[in-house]
Amino acid sequence: MEYTDQAFLMESDRIDSLVQRALEEDLGFGDITSKAVVDPGLMAGGEFLAKEDLVLAGWAAVLQVFRNLSSHVSLDLLHSDGSFVRAGTVIGRIQGRARSLFAGERVALNFLQQLSGVATLTRKFVERVAGTGTEILDTRKTTPGLRCLEKDAVRMGGGKNHRFGLYDGILIKDNHIVAAGGIRNAVSRARSFVEHMKKIEVEVKNLVELDEALAVGAEVILLDNMSVSQVREAVQKTSGRASLEVSGGVNLDNVRDYALAGVNFISVGALTHSAKAVDISLELSLF
Amino acid sequence: MEYTDQAFLMESDRIDSLVQRALEEDLGFGDITSKAVVDPGLMAGGEFLAKEDLVLAGWAAVLQVFRNLSSHVSLDLLHSDGSFVRAGTVIGRIQGRARSLFAGERVALNFLQQLSGVATLTRKFVERVAGTGTEILDTRKTTPGLRCLEKDAVRMGGGKNHRFGLYDGILIKDNHIVAAGGIRNAVSRARSFVEHMKKIEVEVKNLVELDEALAVGAEVILLDNMSVSQVREAVQKTSGRASLEVSGGVNLDNVRDYALAGVNFISVGALTHSAKAVDISLELSLF
Amino acid sequence: MEYTDQAFLMESDRIDSLVQRALEEDLGFGDITSKAVVDPGLMAGGEFLAKEDLVLAGWAAVLQVFRNLSSHVSLDLLHSDGSFVRAGTVIGRIQGRARSLFAGERVALNFLQQLSGVATLTRKFVERVAGTGTEILDTRKTTPGLRCLEKDAVRMGGGKNHRFGLYDGILIKDNHIVAAGGIRNAVSRARSFVEHMKKIEVEVKNLVELDEALAVGAEVILLDNMSVSQVREAVQKTSGRASLEVSGGVNLDNVRDYALAGVNFISVGALTHSAKAVDISLELSLF
Amino acid sequence: MEYTDQAFLMESDRIDSLVQRALEEDLGFGDITSKAVVDPGLMAGGEFLAKEDLVLAGWAAVLQVFRNLSSHVSLDLLHSDGSFVRAGTVIGRIQGRARSLFAGERVALNFLQQLSGVATLTRKFVERVAGTGTEILDTRKTTPGLRCLEKDAVRMGGGKNHRFGLYDGILIKDNHIVAAGGIRNAVSRARSFVEHMKKIEVEVKNLVELDEALAVGAEVILLDNMSVSQVREAVQKTSGRASLEVSGGVNLDNVRDYALAGVNFISVGALTHSAKAVDISLELSLF
Amino acid sequence: MEYTDQAFLMESDRIDSLVQRALEEDLGFGDITSKAVVDPGLMAGGEFLAKEDLVLAGWAAVLQVFRNLSSHVSLDLLHSDGSFVRAGTVIGRIQGRARSLFAGERVALNFLQQLSGVATLTRKFVERVAGTGTEILDTRKTTPGLRCLEKDAVRMGGGKNHRFGLYDGILIKDNHIVAAGGIRNAVSRARSFVEHMKKIEVEVKNLVELDEALAVGAEVILLDNMSVSQVREAVQKTSGRASLEVSGGVNLDNVRDYALAGVNFISVGALTHSAKAVDISLELSLF
Amino acid sequence: MEYTDQAFLMESDRIDSLVQRALEEDLGFGDITSKAVVDPGLMAGGEFLAKEDLVLAGWAAVLQVFRNLSSHVSLDLLHSDGSFVRAGTVIGRIQGRARSLFAGERVALNFLQQLSGVATLTRKFVERVAGTGTEILDTRKTTPGLRCLEKDAVRMGGGKNHRFGLYDGILIKDNHIVAAGGIRNAVSRARSFVEHMKKIEVEVKNLVELDEALAVGAEVILLDNMSVSQVREAVQKTSGRASLEVSGGVNLDNVRDYALAGVNFISVGALTHSAKAVDISLELSLF
Repeated sequence: MEYTDQAFLMESDRIDSLVQRALEEDLGFGDITSKAVVDPGLMAGGEFLAKEDLVLAGWAAVLQVFRNLSSHVSLDLLHSDGSFVRAGTVIGRIQGRARSLFAGERVALNFLQQLSGVATLTRKFVERVAGTGTEILDTRKTTPGLRCLEKDAVRMGGGKNHRFGLYDGILIKDNHIVAAGGIRNAVSRARSFVEHMKKIEVEVKNLVELDEALAVGAEVILLDNMSVSQVREAVQKTSGRASLEVSGGVNLDNVRDYALAGVNFISVGALTHSAKAVDISLELSLF
Repeated sequence: MEYTDQAFLMESDRIDSLVQRALEEDLGFGDITSKAVVDPGLMAGGEFLAKEDLVLAGWAAVLQVFRNLSSHVSLDLLHSDGSFVRAGTVIGRIQGRARSLFAGERVALNFLQQLSGVATLTRKFVERVAGTGTEILDTRKTTPGLRCLEKDAVRMGGGKNHRFGLYDGILIKDNHIVAAGGIRNAVSRARSFVEHMKKIEVEVKNLVELDEALAVGAEVILLDNMSVSQVREAVQKTSGRASLEVSGGVNLDNVRDYALAGVNFISVGALTHSAKAVDISLELSLF
Repeated sequence: MEYTDQAFLMESDRIDSLVQRALEEDLGFGDITSKAVVDPGLMAGGEFLAKEDLVLAGWAAVLQVFRNLSSHVSLDLLHSDGSFVRAGTVIGRIQGRARSLFAGERVALNFLQQLSGVATLTRKFVERVAGTGTEILDTRKTTPGLRCLEKDAVRMGGGKNHRFGLYDGILIKDNHIVAAGGIRNAVSRARSFVEHMKKIEVEVKNLVELDEALAVGAEVILLDNMSVSQVREAVQKTSGRASLEVSGGVNLDNVRDYALAGVNFISVGALTHSAKAVDISLELSLF
Repeated sequence: MEYTDQAFLMESDRIDSLVQRALEEDLGFGDITSKAVVDPGLMAGGEFLAKEDLVLAGWAAVLQVFRNLSSHVSLDLLHSDGSFVRAGTVIGRIQGRARSLFAGERVALNFLQQLSGVATLTRKFVERVAGTGTEILDTRKTTPGLRCLEKDAVRMGGGKNHRFGLYDGILIKDNHIVAAGGIRNAVSRARSFVEHMKKIEVEVKNLVELDEALAVGAEVILLDNMSVSQVREAVQKTSGRASLEVSGGVNLDNVRDYALAGVNFISVGALTHSAKAVDISLELSLF
Repeated sequence: MEYTDQAFLMESDRIDSLVQRALEEDLGFGDITSKAVVDPGLMAGGEFLAKEDLVLAGWAAVLQVFRNLSSHVSLDLLHSDGSFVRAGTVIGRIQGRARSLFAGERVALNFLQQLSGVATLTRKFVERVAGTGTEILDTRKTTPGLRCLEKDAVRMGGGKNHRFGLYDGILIKDNHIVAAGGIRNAVSRARSFVEHMKKIEVEVKNLVELDEALAVGAEVILLDNMSVSQVREAVQKTSGRASLEVSGGVNLDNVRDYALAGVNFISVGALTHSAKAVDISLELSLF
Repeated sequence: MEYTDQAFLMESDRIDSLVQRALEEDLGFGDITSKAVVDPGLMAGGEFLAKEDLVLAGWAAVLQVFRNLSSHVSLDLLHSDGSFVRAGTVIGRIQGRARSLFAGERVALNFLQQLSGVATLTRKFVERVAGTGTEILDTRKTTPGLRCLEKDAVRMGGGKNHRFGLYDGILIKDNHIVAAGGIRNAVSRARSFVEHMKKIEVEVKNLVELDEALAVGAEVILLDNMSVSQVREAVQKTSGRASLEVSGGVNLDNVRDYALAGVNFISVGALTHSAKAVDISLELSLF
């Protein structure tokens, strides 16, 4: 199981400060129970165990947790991020001083359970649209401070990322259209402002607006809160002139219907804002 | 609706860096859509609307979001943290430059929805044990980086906080007991280490261990993963010599049974690790 | 002269830490000459004077410098960022305690002269291509730490920005092509990786590669280090199927020829890596 | 080629945060092109090549760039900071994972080209005054955030540093003299304030002021914007009673005349504010 | 002499930023004397020597100082924190590049002398109460920024820590009692607020207040500024129903009397606010 | 009582982060006693009272403490930094919310007592040498993290500062002399390295070395650990050719003898490393 330098380049900075914050929350001026009760030289080890079926995500944070705590913890990843594993699978083994392991255990699991929860839920959506060619996207409805990690987790679950934030993609919504005095104006102002490497996406609420957006050459169009039949009609009307994204009111029950309607993308806020932590344990024992 | 200085003293530091981080995630080098499309002078306003029944938590973060973005946003809180509101209630009003509101909208909602989610779930647990005298506690199973805010949210929902981290409370678990060579040793080492203002809590797995813990004068005892009937027996055995906390396997269905068994505290990881974001919208319109 | 909140939102964070760093470099533990010689209550004022024809950029940094130093400095901007002013023009007036003005003077001018230098040089390139429809772009060859400000300065001079960094645009260069085993592979891997809102740009060194890039549907093609006549041929071959960008070896003498060859964009490293500080003075006098 | 610990002690802190900032500007949440197109395991290497005659400066920053990106990049410096090299010289070799090299390439070159530009320009001034005994000094007109590195580059080019900032040297200028009510007062206040290890420098605009400054025992006198003949007269008048520094209006054409007039120091803002980046390439190829 | 990972986990974060700050104070942009005069390759070494009888504390900071300066300094600790050593004892040996050792020498000694001063003074108080069963506590009267280290030093001297700050222990003082409208109210509000793992301490000024505090079940009672005879009476009255702490006006002369009066704890502000640096030298010589 | 902007410019940055750190140490996640017991709206006020004769220093830190805690605390300084006040003098008044005052009280006093302790001790040394023309200097033996504040306090007590750190003054000690191969070499290397605005100081251990130092034109000479009679001889020998500083073994008893021996400066480590906190109380009461 290997983590390339580059992988860490990307994330380690953001992970580093986030992991540091999480450790500080939990450790403050120290783990007083261990300080009082556990001899410094004592060694321990244990297994990370999946207690339900899940898709793994978050090992990078776990590694960073123990790296921040000690240079002598060894962590053996048996299944890497993105793997689907069954309940009962041992996914990793860890070994080091008992004090270091006790100090990092909870924070490591908090990351791993929460991020694997996102990956696992994403996979469920992705499986529902299997074979349709439609891709599942995340949104900006992420946990404050964890966006980068949650977006990685979405990819681990088979989803794709939408823009990372307000700075790396133009998405013209209803208020922008009002502010600019119509779709035509908004798109033309955006086009003259934005770098030449970015497409322009416009949110539309109905088929009239869709026509307008197509007329001004929007490259991506977001169909906001439309029914499946409206979406079907939108796909026909568009007939390949723009990419189409569905957003709003999508869940595991209706996602396949939207996909079958022929859109390119479906974005799902629930991937990040409603994923529950999956159950992963770390059973440690002393040597 | 007032926020005292002191309330902010407590939280503002932690909130400040966290909100800053969340804004950086979302804004990077700027909201390019607004920059392109929205005139800087344009004003907007809107209402925060509860779309389901919920308990509010997170206003401090929302305030901080807009304070970081502009000194000219005014935010009028109609219902404060801790209030239970019905679906359809307008909980706050906001006004300011359109660009500032668009820039902060998503991050503000991400905080408010997630933290109100924690408060709302906590209230459900608290309501289940109403009249029993048992208190609902949170755990350390919090979202990395958000512990302080989530623990506030738990209080807003009527719960109480367990220790904040490993540094402000002694909790002797099975591994500590092994490490120290028995409960007696562990408790005595802890007692001689810890400040005189802290109680010592010991986790026990069965009634034999409970006896041992009582024998060495543990002031709080955590009954780990016991059935309701075991807990009932433990309460009898203890008969007031220590406070008792139940932990493990507690859910909305069985929490009242545990409470009726007579324990003082029930700690519930789900309060923070499994709370879903509640639905709150912010509908903005231009002036 | 007004600076909207939102304008500051975007930049103030980055400016803030950068200005802070620049002030620390210059002030360390304090301006010992002023501390020794200038009474704290003494007031001063003065004018920022353009000593050559120039395009202004950098006021936001200047404002931040004096805001960090004192809450009592007033700065009156007579010409805003993006204005072209003749030698001899008073562009701003400042007033405050002498100590504050002496403390910030050099750092403020260092920002203003350097960034106006970038804007001024950009304007020269933009003027050369006037009427051709070609746009002048910057590159990533910026001064370490100043990218955001220099890219703003480029816009103030009438240029447009290329991608901000490696994270917000796909540009496939020769090494990437080798790494992926050909243009087709590289483009297809990029397409399946990248968000749906980004175009894919491919760098080509000759017309054969151009054909390949067109064949795989690259949305933007960078013509690397080609002669004007090669570029002309490339434009013909492409005939609107992709946007074309020229890069490499462009200077004030040949930029118009490249533009007349019909490309959409010309990127010029010199805008940022070879701009010289323009001459702006701040003459202060005591009241 | 060796970098001693101590050399890094001095600079590494400042370089570290500056390099970090520069990498963040360029990399944000990651190099998406490489992530998409380049396999993590792929190795690459290449040569840093001087494309014009130049004096090297900035290796410390280059080392820090790659150290921040990966612990597995090896960098072999063939010519060290301060070396004069001819166009066509290979000045260093680098090897590591392709992704790491692609990620750091631009930032590393931005540092190296700009700082070598400063060293190269400094050397030109130093050569002009060869044999005169006059030393070339830098000023505080440095690029915000880069002062420390640029002042090092000046030394690499054979120049000497003036004070680092307002905190480590007393330089009494015209406004200070007005503020204090005359040169005598200003110098006496400065003397009683400043540590006993610092000399006091006074700026004078004419020979009358020079006399005053000499009369009060200024240890260094800055001749501001004087003609060569005025400077010659000043040297005679002073006749060794103080060190003399020329400042203002000095360029490569007239610097030798000022030096021959007999002053000890000539300070030149252009060393840092008008140095252009020199041309250094890094040609990478995959293994 | 070994420093466990965990020991460093606790402290290294806080020490790291503090040591960094202390080094920056002293080194700024570098040790210019060594840079000028000492060849980079020169090696040196030396001994840390106790020049008076003392209790050691602060090695962790010393280690961090040299670790921050160089990865090639070796430090051999002959006596560990908490050891009592006689004047003339060599307590550690150090070796590395001369420049690194010169750079860190003063800062390292500043930590070691000051913290050993705290440990040494603490030991004097602890020795005075030997055999009485009373424990010596520190207070919050610590040097700003050094609390964590000073509280460690107190433990090294045989003392125990009081609460670390306002956040990890409830101590109800006179103003709190007034604010709450009496001891009963104050204690009951505190009890319902605080986590179940914390005891509640109440400060009383006389025996009437002591009775009140006992009546409401305060678990710890602080006897503020009482005479020895009052304390004796308080101990009798309390007769084991609460722990008793003496605070105010305690010095080396009267501390034993207070201890013999039978209290559990005596807290002494002087341990930290009046400890003088002990004399430890570091004699370096070149190899 | 007024604090100019500039005064704050100098210090506020360093003070800000230091005060922040000190508050975090004490407050962590909040003052739980006040949160539990004191109503947020309650107002309080009080007086800072000198309980012994002292020289004031540290108000800037006190102001910063309360400014960080609340924007609604008003602080009225009746005696400013540098004032000598008698025991019993009210030196300042404070008013604000009770919670804010309780939260900042201890940290504010920790700063004020410790820094006034430095100023007070300095004044004692300065008074001892009154009329001799000798100046009392501090050293680098300062409390880690507080150097800037302690050096200010020394000036408040009538002393002067030595160099701030290793970066702003050349002081050639015995090891440097060995490293350079003699005094002549060391001085000549230092002279060619250092900026032209700095004097060079050389430490000598006896009169032979003094002769050498004078011979090479050292501008300041430090007489290390010499007896009063040696110092007297050194003064005669030097006869004005260099400034002389005495260091080592100086205390309140012998400082006047050294001064009368005719040296210019006496540096005293005890000013900072052995100053005890003076007694200042803050008695608060509720309104």
